[in-house]
Amino acid sequence: MNSPLIDRIAGRPVWIKAEALQRSGSFKYRGARNALAALVDADRLTAARGVIAYSSGNHAQGVAQAASELGLPAVIVMPNDAPPVKIENTRQLGAEVVLYDRPGGESREHVGERLAGERGLSLVRPYDDPHVMAGQGTCGLELAEQAAALGIDSADVLVCCGGGGLSSGVAVALEAQAPALRVRTVEPADADDVARSLQMGKRLANARPPQTFCDAIVTPMPGELTFPILERLAGPGLAIDDSAVRRAMQLAVRHVKLVLEPGGAIALAAALSHDGPPGAPVLAIATGGSVDPALLAQVLSQSA
Amino acid sequence: MNSPLIDRIAGRPVWIKAEALQRSGSFKYRGARNALAALVDADRLTAARGVIAYSSGNHAQGVAQAASELGLPAVIVMPNDAPPVKIENTRQLGAEVVLYDRPGGESREHVGERLAGERGLSLVRPYDDPHVMAGQGTCGLELAEQAAALGIDSADVLVCCGGGGLSSGVAVALEAQAPALRVRTVEPADADDVARSLQMGKRLANARPPQTFCDAIVTPMPGELTFPILERLAGPGLAIDDSAVRRAMQLAVRHVKLVLEPGGAIALAAALSHDGPPGAPVLAIATGGSVDPALLAQVLSQSA
Repeated sequence: MNSPLIDRIAGRPVWIKAEALQRSGSFKYRGARNALAALVDADRLTAARGVIAYSSGNHAQGVAQAASELGLPAVIVMPNDAPPVKIENTRQLGAEVVLYDRPGGESREHVGERLAGERGLSLVRPYDDPHVMAGQGTCGLELAEQAAALGIDSADVLVCCGGGGLSSGVAVALEAQAPALRVRTVEPADADDVARSLQMGKRLANARPPQTFCDAIVTPMPGELTFPILERLAGPGLAIDDSAVRRAMQLAVRHVKLVLEPGGAIALAAALSHDGPPGAPVLAIATGGSVDPALLAQVLSQSA
Repeated sequence: MNSPLIDRIAGRPVWIKAEALQRSGSFKYRGARNALAALVDADRLTAARGVIAYSSGNHAQGVAQAASELGLPAVIVMPNDAPPVKIENTRQLGAEVVLYDRPGGESREHVGERLAGERGLSLVRPYDDPHVMAGQGTCGLELAEQAAALGIDSADVLVCCGGGGLSSGVAVALEAQAPALRVRTVEPADADDVARSLQMGKRLANARPPQTFCDAIVTPMPGELTFPILERLAGPGLAIDDSAVRRAMQLAVRHVKLVLEPGGAIALAAALSHDGPPGAPVLAIATGGSVDPALLAQVLSQSA
């Protein structure tokens, strides 16, 4: 998607890959669907017992939707202080939601391992899993085709980054199909563990709990499997302030009619102040749209 | 587009044709582009002098975008009390905006005719023009193909209706390509001139100025060219309360990540309480997304 008015603001053509319009509201469906399909292929009987995931957000909804399509039971372990709308959506997608007492210090791993053991459930990790990474990479295969159709053979591809599942999967896909499209990770300024890790050549954690409203992409440190791929294929990481993310959310609503959550808008925010040559096109993946209506209302009220 | 959660609420499969994602933010681009292309084909010299339209909303932006793409000058006559964001967007799309004093009683026709005469501009009407109706009808051609791909051969197609340009164009397209898809017009309960006109078999005006926030689809009465087509091809008209439209806007944001203006959400609102056989699929055209951010914020704040 694009908008002449956003191009004018950015001073360059900005192409948006609208993953908020993906099933379940984010790219997470891609990896979940691929991981579940691989599980069924590998061992139909194990798969039939069902899957389990820990997530308070998009991974939960992606796994719930994919499991429902494949007819597999899904258990999602969610914190009891997660937004009611996300719990309700995950339930409506057919998953069993098991709440754990996060504020009380209960461990989701403890709850999850107990349930997985008792019921023989298979764990679907959010990013450090080759099938999940490959599933997210299908977004890169589409990007390569779509960029070619637009006549774009060389550009930065801006991808928000938490654990690195999407950015590493897309980077591998582009290496094969469009090697002059280069992934750049985008993170909140206060959670720039990937950018710093890429700079230092080793996996670094965030020094302190990040202060950002981009909840979907805050992870403690880059993934074990994803980081080596990013190190080999991605350009320097970008870090973006929350205020620029708010503006990107406003512009997406106004000019592209697209609802983006903070983490889903951060790559567009980076496109608006991109450091590439003036006028050169840039591609931004708008990764998800699961935003609390009250938060979106608040962001929109701040529009000029 | 669709969502399992919206299907559950509606009690039937609901398929949304997302015209808010069309260039310029609404289906109006289709008719404007076709009318301008026909003008160029018919008389290149006349077209080169430019086009003029009266509109405070989506037709303005559609004409501005199409004119900019075809390299034609465009003048849009807008009321001086139109929302600043719409005036600004129309200007940024490259049109010259001429304001008239609506609150002071100035007539836009008077201003428009003077300008058209002085500069030799061609008028682009919002709906009562065969080229505009045919352009809007391309939405119906796409619908016919997309419904066939989904295996839907018989269904109601819910279309918001102001002057009837879109609904008549779509009805003609479906008559040719998918005759068992039937157009149903959808209007605000307080501006149901088309539904009453269809019932009575003649063009009736609204009795009094309608009280509704669906500003994009309030017109005094059905069009002269559009109404005979609707009378021949459309089913009984539907009328929907503003409160149901608010709920449809909320659900579009939450489950489809789509920004809809009130008039753009009214067909989805009708789908949620459709009078067809239980479980039968319904198609709804979500016609536009040019909503004032403050209004959307207010609607979202009212969500449960």
